[in-house]
Parts: sequence; structure tokens; C-alpha cells
Amino acid sequence: MSLPKHLSSSDLKWLEQPAPTNNIVVSSRTRLARNLSDQPFAPHANPSDLSEIDDQIREAIDQNPFFKSFTRVELSESTASERAFLKEARLISKEMERGGANRAVYVNQDLKCSIMVNEEDHLRMQRLEPGLQISQAQLQLDEVDRETAKVLPLAFHDHFGFLTACPTNVGTGLRASVMMHLPGLAFRREIEAAFRDLPSKGLTVRGFQGENSEGLGDFYQISNEVTLGKSVAEIEQHLDEAVSAIIAREREARSLLLTHGGMTVTDAVWRSFGILANARRMESAEAMKLLSRLRLGIDAGFFDNLSHEKFNRLVVEIQPGHLHYRHGAAEDAEQRDIARADLIRRALVTKT
Amino acid sequence: MSLPKHLSSSDLKWLEQPAPTNNIVVSSRTRLARNLSDQPFAPHANPSDLSEIDDQIREAIDQNPFFKSFTRVELSESTASERAFLKEARLISKEMERGGANRAVYVNQDLKCSIMVNEEDHLRMQRLEPGLQISQAQLQLDEVDRETAKVLPLAFHDHFGFLTACPTNVGTGLRASVMMHLPGLAFRREIEAAFRDLPSKGLTVRGFQGENSEGLGDFYQISNEVTLGKSVAEIEQHLDEAVSAIIAREREARSLLLTHGGMTVTDAVWRSFGILANARRMESAEAMKLLSRLRLGIDAGFFDNLSHEKFNRLVVEIQPGHLHYRHGAAEDAEQRDIARADLIRRALVTKT
Repeated sequence: MSLPKHLSSSDLKWLEQPAPTNNIVVSSRTRLARNLSDQPFAPHANPSDLSEIDDQIREAIDQNPFFKSFTRVELSESTASERAFLKEARLISKEMERGGANRAVYVNQDLKCSIMVNEEDHLRMQRLEPGLQISQAQLQLDEVDRETAKVLPLAFHDHFGFLTACPTNVGTGLRASVMMHLPGLAFRREIEAAFRDLPSKGLTVRGFQGENSEGLGDFYQISNEVTLGKSVAEIEQHLDEAVSAIIAREREARSLLLTHGGMTVTDAVWRSFGILANARRMESAEAMKLLSRLRLGIDAGFFDNLSHEKFNRLVVEIQPGHLHYRHGAAEDAEQRDIARADLIRRALVTKT
Repeated sequence: MSLPKHLSSSDLKWLEQPAPTNNIVVSSRTRLARNLSDQPFAPHANPSDLSEIDDQIREAIDQNPFFKSFTRVELSESTASERAFLKEARLISKEMERGGANRAVYVNQDLKCSIMVNEEDHLRMQRLEPGLQISQAQLQLDEVDRETAKVLPLAFHDHFGFLTACPTNVGTGLRASVMMHLPGLAFRREIEAAFRDLPSKGLTVRGFQGENSEGLGDFYQISNEVTLGKSVAEIEQHLDEAVSAIIAREREARSLLLTHGGMTVTDAVWRSFGILANARRMESAEAMKLLSRLRLGIDAGFFDNLSHEKFNRLVVEIQPGHLHYRHGAAEDAEQRDIARADLIRRALVTKT
């Protein structure tokens, strides 16, 4: 199978919606972990259990008209490029990208919301919003949660809250995260200092593609580590406070770089632009590094053709899965690097 | 003193004259070493001798109307930037750039011809022409030589020919040289192979700025090493043959790079263009390296705004002396690097 037509032709248009602070916070995401009360949790489930869980969820979802705007994708029947596309669009997790039997994902029309089946928990539902909009994302996700609860028996404990496969998710089952772009702090080598307080606030940092990709293109995901004993409001508030502090530091760093960094920064930004706007072949890591410099130039108003929104979307569209699946680039790395350079070049010389 | 106004405002327009093979041979130069028969040669001359030699030459030149189009510049009264300017324009030698008492240079209006006084020999006269035009340069220089001989007693030996301070110049006193730009052979790492036969033909290789600058920006000066026992015609012919062979190899290299090098070369050329057309600060060595790549792109018709002639001139105009003396850049390296980047950027985005 390939992804349904309306998914494959969909763009990450939501990343281009006007949104607060989207020159620093690319997107906000909340996700809820939920499990069926009448089935063994995933770590203890055998294939036939998983199949039964999947069937039960499918039947329930099918009977609730709320989910009509969602498309079901069987991960076992998808190609690696399709899964890469979904992962890059942040609709499935790194774990789900591996594929596997009895796994599926429901994706809504605008590519902002998805429900993973048989990830670490029976159900992982999540909602993305552009910019810094944690509460807004959670508000939307709450509705999905309620509609799910209408048709499925969810494991809930009066004292602990929602039960999950991993204890860190017990309680609200909520993980809220924001994807930050911090080229200013990176340029000034202040990332470590800016993140120093996060662990003590129960927050953790990951990279652009989740674990082990920290710092790629100066993108960082900040999220809450533990949910037990905290209300949704508390989780949101702690994250929001920490992120706001980092935003302030990044703003200051960018301003200092452009006023005091003078020619060094200006030169670095324009050189990055020059290479991006002219190269005929470019690997992903180089593109991420050079694009990151451009953010400082967009802030400074250097580029007529590049908005923060367009930038945020471009960064996803140059990833391998998108290049192959969305832009028809061949699977081999050389052809993909050529397609990436073409895409970037067009983006930088075409009016937003 | 500063250089006379009409010199300081003169451009290297001659480098932009249409000329044979000027996509590979930037310029041709011939120079003649001459000495006064009634004065000690420079290595044995004391300051008062040198002063007397200089006086004698000045009086002679002044009385011959042929030299009316020449301007005399006292090197002892010139600034380092003025001398750098003259050196970069190839009107004085590296040795003369140091300045020193009793040294002067006569420069003609179009900056193609100069006569150095009290260099290694009493008189060093030379003529530049764009492209591969050794005979043409020598033809013009012959006239200067004859006009000099009319008013000065030159040291000549019936058997050895013209006598010079260094035995390698005895005979015709002629050194003919061509400045070649060989980015194709450099890219393919075939420079060494292309130059292998030169010593056996009595030819030698120097760099862009004479000795010890070999290979800067892939520029190479090829010239005859010894003059004794060879006629002017032989010297010209040997050099012409060797240069023609290198031209053929460079042509083949460029053609191979663009047809078989494919994306690697195309990508490298466009990246170089991107940096040159956008950087806000650039050191000389980087500029030379990146510009060299552009030559392959000019050959391939990539750039509407850049001709081989304009390129040949640009390479000289971005040198430190020209930037300071001609383009008003400050003496400090930072300001010069900014002026260099500005000059290059303007050249690459303005129609020829």
C-alpha cells in the first residue's frame, strides 16, 4: 500500500500558519498515553493480543463519526519512505518508524493530529500546533481524548490516574513539548548554559528527530519528563515558564549577535545564503547547519523571499523521507542531495 | 609624494582588451635587462654610483621625446601601498617593491610598459599584453629598447651580447613570460604533470606574484630561465610551444571536468559563486581560490555578468595594494577584507 492520496498530497501547511514566537519556537506538541483496560499492556502482549487490541481500536474509531476526518495507515504495509515521511512530519514516533505488525496510525486531514496504535502504549494521541501554543494543542487534544473514551474502555486508576506501560507516563499521560530553534544561543555557545536548569524542573531536551539527534541545525525539543503527581495545568505551566526563559535568552543572543557581532555574523549569514542559493548538491547535515544561520538573517530582514513560516516548513521538507515521498527524489543519497539543493534553491529565490 | 594623478586614476583597462586565449593566458610579458657601459654594475655600485646612474638615465630619458608618454615615479618617495599597487599591476618587480634610494620606475600611460631604474640591472624595461601575445609584446618593447639605445651607452659585447649583472640574463637580456590560469589542471591535480617538461626546455615556473607564490588561485607564470646562446626568436618560440601544449591540456581538462565531472564540478563552481556573490568579508587567499573555480563556470556559460576579461582584471583589483590605493580601503586587514568582498560582489552582480 502507499499512503492515501489525500495524505501524500498534503503539505505541512500548518507550519506556515501565523503563530506566536514562531521565529524561535517552530511548533508545540502535546501527546497523551492511553491503554485499554481489558487488554495486557504492550510489553506483556503477544502478537495475538496486539492484533486483538488493534481490531478493538479500529472498530471503536470506525463507529465514532468524530474520527471521520482521520485516515488509518497500516504501518506493516507501508514503505520505509512513507514511514520516514510520517516521522519527519512528527505524526509517528521513531519507534513506530520501524514498522511492525499490528501497528497503525490515524492521521487527520491537516496533518496536525495523529493517534498511534500499539506503540509503547495501546494508544498514543498527539496534536501539533505552530509556534508556542502548548495550551491550544492540549485543548484540541482533549477533545480527541474525550471522543476516544466514549468508545473505548481506558485504563484509569482513581489514585494514580491513567495507567501506562512506562511509569514515567502514569498520571495525566501527558507529554508536552516544544521544538525550539536556537541559532543565536548556538552561535554564542550558550546552549549548555540556557539548558542548565531544565532537569531540576523535570524537563528534558531532545534533538530535531528525537533522541540522539540533539543540536542538529540548532533545533532542540524541550519536554516534560515525568507526569505522575502533576496536573495538566502544572505540566503546561512549568514547560511554558522554562521555554519563555529560553526564548528571552535566544532573543537577546540574536540581538547581541547582530548589533555587536557585526561583520562576523552578517558575513556568516550571507555566506550561508550564498551556498544554499547556489549549491547543486547538498547533504542533510550541511543544509541544516547553513539554514540555521539564515534564521538570524530573516530576523534581521536580510531576505525578501524568506519568512519564518516558510523557513520552518522548508526545514522539514528537505528531510530524506519528504524528498523521496513528497518530491519524487530517488532513494539513492546522491539523487536526494541534488533534489534537496534544488528545493532549497527554489525556496530562496521564489517570493513567499 | 603620491603617484601622479593620471596614474592613480588609471585602470588596468588593457587586461580587458580582447586577446587570444585570454580564458587561459591572462597576459604575456617581455622584459629586457640593460646596463650602462660606463658605470659599475649594480652589485658593485655604491650609493653615489647609483645616484649618478639614475641621474644619467633621467637626463637621457628626458631628452628623448619618445618617452613623453612615460611618467617617472621615485620609489624612495612612494608609500608602501603605492609600490604594492605598482607591483600588483606588474609594473615593478618584487625587489623594487621594497623601495630604496636611487630607484625609479617609468610607467607609460596605458600601464602596459615600464622601465625600472637600478633594479638588478641599471635598466629593466618591460611590456605587457593581454592574452597570449609574446611576439607582440616583444615587438613593442624593441622600440623602447631602440629609443633607449639612442640616448644611453649600453653595455654590449660582440660575442656575448648584452651584458647583465646576473649571467643568466647575458645575451639578449630577454625574459619572456606568460601568466597562465589553470583551474582545470589544478582541479584534476595534473599541474605537476603538465609542468614536468618545462625545465628541460629551459623554462621555469613562478606564481601569481613571482617567486614563492606558486599556485595561488591556480595562476602560474612560465618564463625562460636562460638567455645566453639563444636568439630572441628562439626564446619566443620555445616558450610559445610549451605554453601552447599547456593550453591544450588545460582546455581538455576543463572540457572533461564539465562533461564528466558532472555535478561535482558544477556544484563546486556554483558554491564558489554563491560565497563570492554574498560574503561581506573575504581574505585574499580565499578570494583567489574561489575565483579560480569561477573560471570553469565562465567557460561553461554559467554567468551572464562575468567575462574572461572582467575576471582577469578583477583578480588584480582585489589585491591589497589595489584595494588600498585604488579603491580607498583602509590599511588594516579587516577593512581591506570588507572592501574586497564589496568589490567582488559588485563585479558579480553588475553586467559586464
